[in-house]
Amino acid sequence: MPTIKVESQLEYDVRQPTNMLFKIAAARTERQEVRNERLVVQPEMQMETLEVGLEGNTMQRLSVQPCQLTIQYEAEVVSVAQSTDLGNVAESNVGSLPMEVLPYLNPSRYCESDLLGRFAFEEFGQVQPGLLRVQAICDWVNEHLDYTPGSTGVMTTAADVVLQRTGVCRDYAHLAIALCRGIGVPARYVSGYAAQLQPPDFHGFMEVFLSGQWYFFDPTRLAPVDGLVRIATGRDAADVPFATITGDAGLTSKTVSAVFLPE
Amino acid sequence: MPTIKVESQLEYDVRQPTNMLFKIAAARTERQEVRNERLVVQPEMQMETLEVGLEGNTMQRLSVQPCQLTIQYEAEVVSVAQSTDLGNVAESNVGSLPMEVLPYLNPSRYCESDLLGRFAFEEFGQVQPGLLRVQAICDWVNEHLDYTPGSTGVMTTAADVVLQRTGVCRDYAHLAIALCRGIGVPARYVSGYAAQLQPPDFHGFMEVFLSGQWYFFDPTRLAPVDGLVRIATGRDAADVPFATITGDAGLTSKTVSAVFLPE
Amino acid sequence: MPTIKVESQLEYDVRQPTNMLFKIAAARTERQEVRNERLVVQPEMQMETLEVGLEGNTMQRLSVQPCQLTIQYEAEVVSVAQSTDLGNVAESNVGSLPMEVLPYLNPSRYCESDLLGRFAFEEFGQVQPGLLRVQAICDWVNEHLDYTPGSTGVMTTAADVVLQRTGVCRDYAHLAIALCRGIGVPARYVSGYAAQLQPPDFHGFMEVFLSGQWYFFDPTRLAPVDGLVRIATGRDAADVPFATITGDAGLTSKTVSAVFLPE
Amino acid sequence: MPTIKVESQLEYDVRQPTNMLFKIAAARTERQEVRNERLVVQPEMQMETLEVGLEGNTMQRLSVQPCQLTIQYEAEVVSVAQSTDLGNVAESNVGSLPMEVLPYLNPSRYCESDLLGRFAFEEFGQVQPGLLRVQAICDWVNEHLDYTPGSTGVMTTAADVVLQRTGVCRDYAHLAIALCRGIGVPARYVSGYAAQLQPPDFHGFMEVFLSGQWYFFDPTRLAPVDGLVRIATGRDAADVPFATITGDAGLTSKTVSAVFLPE
Repeated sequence: MPTIKVESQLEYDVRQPTNMLFKIAAARTERQEVRNERLVVQPEMQMETLEVGLEGNTMQRLSVQPCQLTIQYEAEVVSVAQSTDLGNVAESNVGSLPMEVLPYLNPSRYCESDLLGRFAFEEFGQVQPGLLRVQAICDWVNEHLDYTPGSTGVMTTAADVVLQRTGVCRDYAHLAIALCRGIGVPARYVSGYAAQLQPPDFHGFMEVFLSGQWYFFDPTRLAPVDGLVRIATGRDAADVPFATITGDAGLTSKTVSAVFLPE
Repeated sequence: MPTIKVESQLEYDVRQPTNMLFKIAAARTERQEVRNERLVVQPEMQMETLEVGLEGNTMQRLSVQPCQLTIQYEAEVVSVAQSTDLGNVAESNVGSLPMEVLPYLNPSRYCESDLLGRFAFEEFGQVQPGLLRVQAICDWVNEHLDYTPGSTGVMTTAADVVLQRTGVCRDYAHLAIALCRGIGVPARYVSGYAAQLQPPDFHGFMEVFLSGQWYFFDPTRLAPVDGLVRIATGRDAADVPFATITGDAGLTSKTVSAVFLPE
Repeated sequence: MPTIKVESQLEYDVRQPTNMLFKIAAARTERQEVRNERLVVQPEMQMETLEVGLEGNTMQRLSVQPCQLTIQYEAEVVSVAQSTDLGNVAESNVGSLPMEVLPYLNPSRYCESDLLGRFAFEEFGQVQPGLLRVQAICDWVNEHLDYTPGSTGVMTTAADVVLQRTGVCRDYAHLAIALCRGIGVPARYVSGYAAQLQPPDFHGFMEVFLSGQWYFFDPTRLAPVDGLVRIATGRDAADVPFATITGDAGLTSKTVSAVFLPE
Repeated sequence: MPTIKVESQLEYDVRQPTNMLFKIAAARTERQEVRNERLVVQPEMQMETLEVGLEGNTMQRLSVQPCQLTIQYEAEVVSVAQSTDLGNVAESNVGSLPMEVLPYLNPSRYCESDLLGRFAFEEFGQVQPGLLRVQAICDWVNEHLDYTPGSTGVMTTAADVVLQRTGVCRDYAHLAIALCRGIGVPARYVSGYAAQLQPPDFHGFMEVFLSGQWYFFDPTRLAPVDGLVRIATGRDAADVPFATITGDAGLTSKTVSAVFLPE
């Protein structure tokens, strides 16, 4: 059971009264224990903590007056390793999927699984169903995209990425999610921390539903899967930005870190 | 409190073992009472009823062997009329929105509010916030689109519609939803029945969150708002098709009806 | 030197004074001799014959008063067979391409070679340059698309087709053209007649520039290459519709035929 | 008859044998006289001058070995002022357009006039045809877009711009061209120099065909129309980049200048 120490610090120049939502705290789930957590905002102000949706996304909401705002988070996260016995994990029959899993079969803003369904079936329809097939999708994504910071933007979608063949972590995840949904495997986006990621930053990866449970996959292969720490879960990156700003505030500094603690 | 009698009948040629999900039953909510409901499947088979999500979407799930399948639904729905005092309904401050409403500010597959945000602000940023502004959006959509069956498909998005200026009910709703989200008003898609709709069919409209509650709007103006009956609620039409088919089944007949009952 | 007898007849219900441009006559080029040509319009009216561009596109222009219009074309076309010694035909060096060929390296409305360039290089960058590489592109297009009438429309582009994997002749040609331009091979769209095409209709195919001359390719494989008859040449289908109508006229009948004459 | 002194200097780090095409020399047309022209390449090498297409586009082609390449251009351009009597210039009847003008009615890569046709007719169908209508299109473009360097890229199209409402000179021109074609007015893209442009750079504007001749329009309003100097003409920016590079060469410096000379 690896333990990961995560930290982040964001600084903003808030120029007008502004509403801010932050998704930077590690999620508390059955698979992820959070210890020694600390969240500090400066200057001191009232902060509301919300939980949204069935996946336990936690967010902080602040109404901020003009100031230099700093928000700092740290925690130690103990995560339960997921099975790696790939050959034995099958796909769930669509007729027996739990109801809360069904929406993750639907196309979403950045994962046009409807548009890419025929492509997904053509490429992966003949592969053995289950973890092996999801692995094949992740391999395809990894091999056919070039990881190129700056090549995509916040509105880049899975379909864009299939065409242009470049992207960053969120694009890799979006494409893999769209292809999984396209062959009938529920898949969703996870924002988080990632131990050993270079350069350190927030990370985006995905989670697929197989044999009755969710499994993490990171098609970028930029960090070990057992070092992934969930912050928030959504249909795609549209649901889980680390900050949502309504008003006028500019990010002036961002520092993120995640390291394995010695056991 | 209008009462609407709704009926639908779908027939399928099921050619292989097929999983089918139906969203055709009226939702049971605080604002919508369902009486004398009857749902019949022929040939007789086991049917599972699921509720998905926070909006109380109800669906029927069937595993169907090859056959001629008929599914019939009928009910009487008493709906609580919503306020029509438009001038007095304001927009909610984003900082005080309930947590479960927040996802309806996010862009979705067919409602690219991120892409259309600047356009929305340019057109509607100066209009008085509240019901009047949402009404202005619906008026714009109604005036700038031509209702043209066949001009769009299942993958047509709000952005497509802004460009091509034609569509059907789902396109009208998608565009109005995208524009509402674009100016910071939570909005979602509702599939349903609509009394007096010509020709009778399932209908798609929208719901916006103002002053702490949800309000129906139908930018097509093809049916009176107090004759709208909710089946299911989603981010857009991707979430609420009347049928989802995994396998091989062709729709051979569809009959839909909705009429006001005398009070 | 195969000889092909081509015929077409178009009928229109002209409801207002309308300008009509027709591109239905076989082009007269070094490689294509046109004999026994006949073009008849009923009712009798003045008809202007225009030649546009460097490729010798011929078109008929009419100003039509309200009427039932019939335009009939027939001709015998003797075409010079092109080399089939695929292994010996190389790609031209971009630095020595004739000036009039250069525009056919540029992206066009339905052939987004800029967007698809990286994909083209990834798939075909390692293939031996020349006719064999163009053949590989045509094979890929043929194998990865399903020929599905009705699956695409007049605004479908090569990028759309890569994603959705279905199309008709113009889509096959657009995708192959985009991929050729993407790897630096000039390519253009040709509208025409095609002997043995089933069902008979106007056809769309492509032409690529290799070793100093243009070669026909038909990625649909629906008709023999030596039965292809050029009507008009353009950057893509936007340039060569068989009819361009400004006014109000509806096509009520279209008959097309192309057969090899016995030698 | 204003005289404009134009100069440009481009420097490249050429890392491999590279083919380069430059479009930086002022075009010689009936409306534009070029004097005291000087084009220098360093290191000294063979340079081929090509003219492409009916619009007299001139380009320089070089095969360059690895080196630090500098290309310098200067000239004095005397241009014939175009009519500004807007009310008297009508649109040409489509039935009498010269054959070489017809392709500029077709949609092109970055000007999707087919997609935007209905929008164009809705917005501008009722405006008096002629220069006044083209002016109305340019005004609409200028008022509805924000000039925002960096907001668009080389693959941004007119349809993108209608949605996102930001762009630079090429985007302004593309949108105005698409709208003109959409209402049946031939329009094309012109790259050039522009006196008084701030900051100095190459510029992109458009030309429309009215009453039998071409007229310049610059929807950005960033420079006076009589200070516009044509380099090259095309369907859109895809046809007229100032440099086309096949190989490996990076632009390390670009200096452009255009000033009115005292008469």
